[in-house]
Amino acid sequence: MLPDLRPPPPRPSSAPREVAVLGSTGSIGRQTLEVAALFPERVRVRSLAAGAGWEALAEQARRVRPARAVIADEGAYVPLRDALAGTGVEVAAGDDAVAALAADAEVVVAAVVGVAGLASTLAAARAGARVALANKESLVVGGALVAAACAESGAVVVPVDSEHSALFQCLVGEDPASVERLLLTASGGPFRDRPARTFDAITPAEALRHPNWSMGAKVTVDSATMMNKGLEVIEAHWLFGVEPERIGVVVHPQSVVHSVVEFVDGSSKAQLGVPDMKVPIQVALSYPERWPAPHERLDWPAAGPLDFVAPDPERFPCLTLAYDALRAGGAAPAALNAANEVAVARFLDGAVRFTDVPRLVEAGMRAADAAGGAGTLGALRAVDAEARRLAAEAARSLQPA
Amino acid sequence: MLPDLRPPPPRPSSAPREVAVLGSTGSIGRQTLEVAALFPERVRVRSLAAGAGWEALAEQARRVRPARAVIADEGAYVPLRDALAGTGVEVAAGDDAVAALAADAEVVVAAVVGVAGLASTLAAARAGARVALANKESLVVGGALVAAACAESGAVVVPVDSEHSALFQCLVGEDPASVERLLLTASGGPFRDRPARTFDAITPAEALRHPNWSMGAKVTVDSATMMNKGLEVIEAHWLFGVEPERIGVVVHPQSVVHSVVEFVDGSSKAQLGVPDMKVPIQVALSYPERWPAPHERLDWPAAGPLDFVAPDPERFPCLTLAYDALRAGGAAPAALNAANEVAVARFLDGAVRFTDVPRLVEAGMRAADAAGGAGTLGALRAVDAEARRLAAEAARSLQPA
Repeated sequence: MLPDLRPPPPRPSSAPREVAVLGSTGSIGRQTLEVAALFPERVRVRSLAAGAGWEALAEQARRVRPARAVIADEGAYVPLRDALAGTGVEVAAGDDAVAALAADAEVVVAAVVGVAGLASTLAAARAGARVALANKESLVVGGALVAAACAESGAVVVPVDSEHSALFQCLVGEDPASVERLLLTASGGPFRDRPARTFDAITPAEALRHPNWSMGAKVTVDSATMMNKGLEVIEAHWLFGVEPERIGVVVHPQSVVHSVVEFVDGSSKAQLGVPDMKVPIQVALSYPERWPAPHERLDWPAAGPLDFVAPDPERFPCLTLAYDALRAGGAAPAALNAANEVAVARFLDGAVRFTDVPRLVEAGMRAADAAGGAGTLGALRAVDAEARRLAAEAARSLQPA
Repeated sequence: MLPDLRPPPPRPSSAPREVAVLGSTGSIGRQTLEVAALFPERVRVRSLAAGAGWEALAEQARRVRPARAVIADEGAYVPLRDALAGTGVEVAAGDDAVAALAADAEVVVAAVVGVAGLASTLAAARAGARVALANKESLVVGGALVAAACAESGAVVVPVDSEHSALFQCLVGEDPASVERLLLTASGGPFRDRPARTFDAITPAEALRHPNWSMGAKVTVDSATMMNKGLEVIEAHWLFGVEPERIGVVVHPQSVVHSVVEFVDGSSKAQLGVPDMKVPIQVALSYPERWPAPHERLDWPAAGPLDFVAPDPERFPCLTLAYDALRAGGAAPAALNAANEVAVARFLDGAVRFTDVPRLVEAGMRAADAAGGAGTLGALRAVDAEARRLAAEAARSLQPA
């Protein structure tokens, strides 16, 4: 009775998807392995890569039995090799070995943390893989490079971030030209209702208490400053090809509506669910299929009331800075991102106040003014380094809290 | 960067869609003409049909200039013909002439009110048209017949009801097999918070005050009893091929979330917007495209809080009766629908109390027990008549309020 609404047919082969998990010992990496374990017929974890923690990687590799395990830290090669002796798991080390994994898998889960993830995301994009993208910096810093690599190789990116996965899911079956606006929801973090005049006194312990999501310290502070949402606006720009004026942010404390697409005809679609990263991870692996899974369901009568408030620019200047960087283009988002990493680290150290974070970011963003562009990985790395230097310098010039 | 998410390509021709509007003088019909007027390049209203009000039909035909205007009431043929003399609009009268229109258009907007709409919906389905379906009874009463006609001719139904349009929009690009549950939202009507023990005293004037949608008297009372939602559950069953156990109802007083699809992987999608029937009407005309239109946009910060509550079966027995009828199958939904029409009319007359409505419906539903089935339009009409007789008899046996 209905028209044929189905997605494009899945791959002809019914063999399991061969997956490389880069950043397998981090939060997204570990949850990816949990999801993969639910679907032994559909997903084969072919390779694992981690940064420095060889013990955790060895434990995963003994359990999952991938063909290869790679540690970025070359100094950890010997202990990892010894720990996996006799398992048949091939062991390698170094950034190039991680990038080689990315270039040799059907689906690459790009879950390396930080700007270190850009090189392997680029390798995956150049190789034409599906990139299940959890590494924010790949697009924040290297959006133009990743987009160019995808255009050349035919690689596709399926986002893993809950907000971008929501937008992706709402866009399935829709013409991208019919999008009027993307609306990212934000929990607003722990300080959404705290009076702005008390922000100077926010302690690291307070900033690390996130109401809805359990994440690493850096991301949790980014959520408290709303820089996290600013970085997501930049990602959304690259993923969906939508200019900053048509990307909005709304504070939604319950984190049930994960994001919204507004269409040119006045209709909106939202993706919703219990906050659980395993759902968007699974969607990135299964698309265009959906696989039955026991993730927690939304209990609708208990889900409301759902609130929506405009973000307060006075409380959250980092959000404004991110829009500024996106509009400035070029290497500005790379500088923003690098300066923010330094600023958050200094805040967590107790060296600067919560309200100094945007000040340090602004100082670091000047690195982009002098930069020659964002056309190569090398140029981006130079801007990254200079932005860190400027932010650190600004931190030293500020009185401790 | 994204995979190709686009819908199936639109028709090769860029000629405007030829549309027949059946029930053009009713609320949906009038709004359909408003939407069509926004898109003169994309929609051509080829024919109009109305039940009995020839003056309104003549006024529309003079304005819209369709090829044909048909009035179901044969007694109104002469005044309609005279009113349209010299316009070039071809005039006809009678139910068969309405059905003939349905059989000769690319898109048939089936917006006739009541069970009278079934015959023309069936004619459109048999002819292989796209049916933009606003007539609830077509599926509530004749779901099996319409489904069989679509299967034979290749006709497709695109729902116009806001809830079913929401489900339809959420299913675009999704495999129907990946649906776990459909969740229809309901405003809960004006009595959602009124104590059940005071329901005996509800007056017609109270029942006609709907908080969100402006609709006809019958539909407004159906919303107050939640029979409306029960009929929509039956419609959803036929439209989406989902059994009653997997169709839920949640009360959502703000009518912003128009309905929700829950998928097997734990993800949910909702369609949202300002309550405005022009949006789903337009979607039914434009699918798989979306056309830019100035309908009112949702103002998110002002939209919340959004509440969700389980419907109270004590307050709303009509909802339970509708599920019963759907599970019983055959002619039971036809009997439910016919008895409900009588019950609502008697309530509006002041002949029975609000709480008698489900009693009359239950009495009328016995018409299905004796029926030979629901296999033909004739059999359904016989059940309809018998259910009306039984409900009327039950009304007479009750004391007035």
